Amino acid sequence: MSHPVGLRILGIDPGLQVTGYGVIEVGGGRPRVVEAGVIRGAESGRSKADMAQRLNLLYTGIVEVIEEFKPGAMAVEQLYAHYEHPRTAILMGHARGVLLLAAGQRNIPVTSYNATRIKKTITGHGRATKEQMQHTMLRELNLATLPEPPDVADALAAALCHYYAPEVTT
Amino acid sequence: MSHPVGLRILGIDPGLQVTGYGVIEVGGGRPRVVEAGVIRGAESGRSKADMAQRLNLLYTGIVEVIEEFKPGAMAVEQLYAHYEHPRTAILMGHARGVLLLAAGQRNIPVTSYNATRIKKTITGHGRATKEQMQHTMLRELNLATLPEPPDVADALAAALCHYYAPEVTT
Repeated sequence: MSHPVGLRILGIDPGLQVTGYGVIEVGGGRPRVVEAGVIRGAESGRSKADMAQRLNLLYTGIVEVIEEFKPGAMAVEQLYAHYEHPRTAILMGHARGVLLLAAGQRNIPVTSYNATRIKKTITGHGRATKEQMQHTMLRELNLATLPEPPDVADALAAALCHYYAPEVTT
Repeated sequence: MSHPVGLRILGIDPGLQVTGYGVIEVGGGRPRVVEAGVIRGAESGRSKADMAQRLNLLYTGIVEVIEEFKPGAMAVEQLYAHYEHPRTAILMGHARGVLLLAAGQRNIPVTSYNATRIKKTITGHGRATKEQMQHTMLRELNLATLPEPPDVADALAAALCHYYAPEVTT
């Protein structure tokens, strides 16, 4: 919690269909939310043909967020090796790759946190449901409305996890 | 094999340490090799910290190849879901993501071929060794020397596979 006042942390919940993002700013008290939302890939299913275009949309979207809000740190959810569908994990890796690239091109340090660690840091238990995450973020960050879709709450949670515990997990 | 004469096909064997690439050009007879080589990521092991920078090196490298040789098609090896180490497959997904992004940003159509399909198309059997792939590429493409490292042969093989059978596999 030794972050400099004014530091903006960009949290990301990566996905090929929907990527949640949230920017929080370190202040005197609790961090405040600067901006949060989602970047949507093409809606055209999972065909291989448009993968490159989908990654292009995702990259363009996150670059816009970075250029506008100028975060000094990025926190991203880690992918598991034990997904139910390993193929999904590989495809998610593609998405995560272009997100990390956008940070690397601008020398923004990236920290990865696994989902259990984020949930535990934010709610106190590692198996919190999506709804619990949404309600916790509503309360913790003094939001006016529940963060929707849940990807937004997960992205804000990643940012807040980095705020509380800026430590690399591998 | 209905590719227009002059079309350049960029084949890629993606990796985080070493990415092989090879550009072939469609002519009257067999395609000729325009350029082939490797793009190296940072040598500093597999630490998470420099992943974004490693992806940046890879992206910058492939963009240079694309800008210089202006391929009209890209053929990339598919990742498997059944790697011995699923974590490796996810990390490889990161690399593949930035390679596809570079193509998507320039509207270069990308086709994925699984390794078995490439080997079978090129050598006649799906379990060819790296050495067999290297020697087959030497012969098929009339190279002066054995393509080294094997990643270069695999990249050229992906390009040649696309030349022979430009068909999407998923």
